[in-house]
Amino acid sequence: MCGKGWIWYPGDFELYHGMLQNFQREERSYGWPAYWKMDDWRKNVRFYNNYQLKEATRICVTAAGQGYAAVNGKKFPFGRWIDCQEGACTIEIFVGNMFGLPCAFVEGDVIYSDSGWMADDFTECHPVGMSSLYQDKEKDPNHVYYETEEVLPVSEEEVHDGVLMDFGRMVNGTVRVMFADVWASGRSAGEVTVAYGESAAEATDLTWCYYKSEHVISGDVLRRRAFRYLYIPGCRVGQVSCVATHQWVPIPVKASFWCDDEKMNRIWDVAKETYRLCSGLFFIDGIKRDRWIWSGDAYQSYFVNPYLFMDEEIDKRTILALRGNQDIVQHINTIVDYSMLWLISIEKEYWMTGDKGFVQMLYSKMEGMMGLLESQLDEHGFIRGRERDWIFIDWSDIDKTGAVCAEQVLLLKCYETMAFCGKLLAVDYQKYEQAYEKLKANLFAFFWNEEKGAFIDSYESGKNHVTRHANIFAILFDVTDKVQTRSIIDRVLLNPEITQITTPYFKFFELDVWGKTGHLDKVYDAIRDYWGGMIDRGAVTFWEDYDAAQGEPEQYGMYGDPFGKSLCHAWGASPIYLLGRYFLGVRPLEPGYKTFEAKPQLSYLGKLDCVVPVKGGSVSIKYDGEHLEITSDRDGLTE
Amino acid sequence: MCGKGWIWYPGDFELYHGMLQNFQREERSYGWPAYWKMDDWRKNVRFYNNYQLKEATRICVTAAGQGYAAVNGKKFPFGRWIDCQEGACTIEIFVGNMFGLPCAFVEGDVIYSDSGWMADDFTECHPVGMSSLYQDKEKDPNHVYYETEEVLPVSEEEVHDGVLMDFGRMVNGTVRVMFADVWASGRSAGEVTVAYGESAAEATDLTWCYYKSEHVISGDVLRRRAFRYLYIPGCRVGQVSCVATHQWVPIPVKASFWCDDEKMNRIWDVAKETYRLCSGLFFIDGIKRDRWIWSGDAYQSYFVNPYLFMDEEIDKRTILALRGNQDIVQHINTIVDYSMLWLISIEKEYWMTGDKGFVQMLYSKMEGMMGLLESQLDEHGFIRGRERDWIFIDWSDIDKTGAVCAEQVLLLKCYETMAFCGKLLAVDYQKYEQAYEKLKANLFAFFWNEEKGAFIDSYESGKNHVTRHANIFAILFDVTDKVQTRSIIDRVLLNPEITQITTPYFKFFELDVWGKTGHLDKVYDAIRDYWGGMIDRGAVTFWEDYDAAQGEPEQYGMYGDPFGKSLCHAWGASPIYLLGRYFLGVRPLEPGYKTFEAKPQLSYLGKLDCVVPVKGGSVSIKYDGEHLEITSDRDGLTE
Repeated sequence: MCGKGWIWYPGDFELYHGMLQNFQREERSYGWPAYWKMDDWRKNVRFYNNYQLKEATRICVTAAGQGYAAVNGKKFPFGRWIDCQEGACTIEIFVGNMFGLPCAFVEGDVIYSDSGWMADDFTECHPVGMSSLYQDKEKDPNHVYYETEEVLPVSEEEVHDGVLMDFGRMVNGTVRVMFADVWASGRSAGEVTVAYGESAAEATDLTWCYYKSEHVISGDVLRRRAFRYLYIPGCRVGQVSCVATHQWVPIPVKASFWCDDEKMNRIWDVAKETYRLCSGLFFIDGIKRDRWIWSGDAYQSYFVNPYLFMDEEIDKRTILALRGNQDIVQHINTIVDYSMLWLISIEKEYWMTGDKGFVQMLYSKMEGMMGLLESQLDEHGFIRGRERDWIFIDWSDIDKTGAVCAEQVLLLKCYETMAFCGKLLAVDYQKYEQAYEKLKANLFAFFWNEEKGAFIDSYESGKNHVTRHANIFAILFDVTDKVQTRSIIDRVLLNPEITQITTPYFKFFELDVWGKTGHLDKVYDAIRDYWGGMIDRGAVTFWEDYDAAQGEPEQYGMYGDPFGKSLCHAWGASPIYLLGRYFLGVRPLEPGYKTFEAKPQLSYLGKLDCVVPVKGGSVSIKYDGEHLEITSDRDGLTE
Repeated sequence: MCGKGWIWYPGDFELYHGMLQNFQREERSYGWPAYWKMDDWRKNVRFYNNYQLKEATRICVTAAGQGYAAVNGKKFPFGRWIDCQEGACTIEIFVGNMFGLPCAFVEGDVIYSDSGWMADDFTECHPVGMSSLYQDKEKDPNHVYYETEEVLPVSEEEVHDGVLMDFGRMVNGTVRVMFADVWASGRSAGEVTVAYGESAAEATDLTWCYYKSEHVISGDVLRRRAFRYLYIPGCRVGQVSCVATHQWVPIPVKASFWCDDEKMNRIWDVAKETYRLCSGLFFIDGIKRDRWIWSGDAYQSYFVNPYLFMDEEIDKRTILALRGNQDIVQHINTIVDYSMLWLISIEKEYWMTGDKGFVQMLYSKMEGMMGLLESQLDEHGFIRGRERDWIFIDWSDIDKTGAVCAEQVLLLKCYETMAFCGKLLAVDYQKYEQAYEKLKANLFAFFWNEEKGAFIDSYESGKNHVTRHANIFAILFDVTDKVQTRSIIDRVLLNPEITQITTPYFKFFELDVWGKTGHLDKVYDAIRDYWGGMIDRGAVTFWEDYDAAQGEPEQYGMYGDPFGKSLCHAWGASPIYLLGRYFLGVRPLEPGYKTFEAKPQLSYLGKLDCVVPVKGGSVSIKYDGEHLEITSDRDGLTE
């Protein structure tokens, strides 16, 4: 995937930076490391490669860590040019690094570090890991090299006894604080407090704002945080200035969107901004609060990616970071359904990238995950939670007695994914097809309620409670036939007596069903109402949750915390997927977009001038109200 | 084992510092991390304890890492006093630390961190780990707090174009270099090179000395290294001064030795010095070269410990560091016999400490190790090496075709150890007794050669080659009956045609056999000749290897390297064990020295004035040539 560059043990870059990411959470003066088991990257690695040199050459090895390079067994320190003689030449690089990622960079005309090298952790050897972000010798893979942009407040006003600065957009970065000379010299302490907020209400609430730096002196640069507003109590406009440096991982946007409807355009732009902010090395949930890599949140980000970035590496980094090392004892993020979404995402990823090598690399970890899932099956093949497992599905009133229907539907899709990938790799996949058939039969036998024309949450409780969740998954994952799907739509999804989906997390799945089943009116209205509603409230990024019935300041609260809601949350970006997939109608027909379809629905958005990426290029869709022009700059792919 | 103090996930202190230790090797300007898989300590831990408070109290939590303390679910930052109300009180401490050991220290009158706390890595909960070395809040378990002593050269002389400084003893520590003002001001570069040596020959060899600091300027403090000599080329006596700061982990010496024979006293003293230098947080092989934790070397250190330190913690730390986490895929130090010696050492350790709790804590890891060993058995129950496994036994001409006899003898002892420990813990131990009997029968059927009256190395090669090694192990581990033992002694050990043991590593086992079988003359002569020989050459510590036939400078070479030999090597300290065990005759008769024996052999050493530790006290042995006085300060142990 890359030419020359830094090399490491495959997957370890993701484990190292994934842990760094999951340790970033900060809340009211304490750190909040994610509350699950995080696998370690290897500290001690040997890299090696063999060459047959036609003439003498030389190499220089740079490494992050301590160790040495050995040329045909002779040891040399790092950082010096080493002569390699003509003939057979084995290069080994031993790197130990307790406090970072052991990695190496080999310079040379003939010999250099690339994807042909192998990494050995002294028990297993695999092709090295690399990244297009780390191809320069000066860029140590232990660090994240952000693009930066200086951001100044767009307004400052005096609120209570202080100054509220509005940067007009969400910033994720550092802040440099400077005192005006006259004012500073007149202060005894020479210190201020800087309070942060995604909303003005949060920044000006010195007790409940999430972040606050105290004892700040002129010239201080405050740590990387996400905010739109800063509030500095005890001063007046002109006395203190703040300059933010917004930081982001460079991932190019390959899509553009314009239609007749300005609100729709604004929704797409704000979704883009939201998604870019939540896409660093990994897909995270949001930039202010958790900043953790959640498998469920990432799953939805995988859907948006091909309609905005078409960046394969961020998908792969996230998938690797979530999964950890081969041996697995705990579900991803402790959540059983998140483990299954992780598995399911790999088929999705393959449809985007067509990268069989990645599936190959991952397959033993997929099998390991299946092993964990299968260790929890009951006599009917239903998966059940163990102690410390979280059966999540959604924040909703689901009957979780015993085996839970929605989990079984996910498990079905896991079998299908394993069969799909196993077939791709020409390994034994029939066992998963058999498991699929057995589970599907039992799913209908135990959970399908003919009277209600739908799946019930639990058969053990006797309550025959119906929620939308399992039924939505069943349609999305093609478990139901046409008659059953029709029944679910009529008797569950269109039935006002069935509890509505309230979380934007599950709203994504519901809208995907509406799109998949051709109910584009429903998708269109939802985008206009739900996302448009946030736009109407001046949102510059999309929120974790939106309830039109709430006003200031309760609309900022969540999880029992007055500012617990994240106002820049990755799953808020789903309009990019919904518009691209269902209204612009672009999708791969074969993995890796070897063939693809662009089938815009012209009755919703008026005129169009849009670009949607496909693997290796893009599709341009223009519609002037009369003529539709669809062009692609992509060459035909050859096998 | 400790009162108040720092707490961590059990075993993780050892994994963290063990890796630090195994990454310490330095050789001619490059680092040399140990070439095996090293398990990681956990980065993310929850500590917890429950109290029933009779009245309100308060606590303050200090931690190495980021996170928070939660009192009945409410979160607080570290480092501040927190009020705890009367009644049920659950304290949780969440600590994440990517770059060090997550650990915590709780202060309070009623609530404080002690061995009653639990540690949770989000998959398993166990009682916390602690150490008597880390009971002060100011002593962060991420650091080693050495005792220090300033050491000055005892002589300086001009050699070639420089100054050779002899510190008169082995130093393991830093060096502060100062230039005399007059001289320094006259130099253009103001830099010197400092070369190190365990011998004068090494220090003055600027090409082949192991360590060398270049571009040293006045005032520099050079990193911790082991040496006796320093050599500074390009200067004269008086121009540069060096002050060393010797550093050591404080482990009290509880034994003393004096006899009529001054050479024996000197041997004991030099052995003590050698052993103390090689005993840090862990038993390492030597202080100059590897500095690694080798299971075979440590095994012999466990024998010396009760006769010098009687320090339980260093045994336990070493055992835990060697073993790693529960799952095991690679043999300790990659060596199959070292894995088995690790297992066997636990029975040894239990005989010293009587600490059933430690065996309990370790038992699942012992079973894991047995699982690895058993995965490599053939149809006869013989263990065979896998690819990448090292069947070591000794640097000697052993016939290693197929199943190797000495490995099977060790495996027998592993079964015995498992049965012993399983019985102690009242778990299923019979399976190991059965495995023992089966393997023993096959060992004799395949490896015992009646014609030679001894075990042969390999039955598959057809060579019927006999070496001492398997036969020595067989006697040490009570595999042979009296007749067989007699036969091995006569036809192998006393047989000059059987290749002599040449390594001090295996010489230990041979001498232990001589001691065990009552051949004290042989032990006595060996101590006088082998260790006395090194004394005669001015050794201030005992060497990795000694061959009386070698002179300067070849006596410093090993492994094909002119200064490859370690001149301060832990296994050189075995006279302390041999003298204490066989000549002073002290040993436990029951685990933990509940009862013990002191049965000095008076015909070798003349008068005696010795102290030998026993658990909880010591035995004093005085002999004036006529009267023997044996006293102990130890109270009777109660159950």
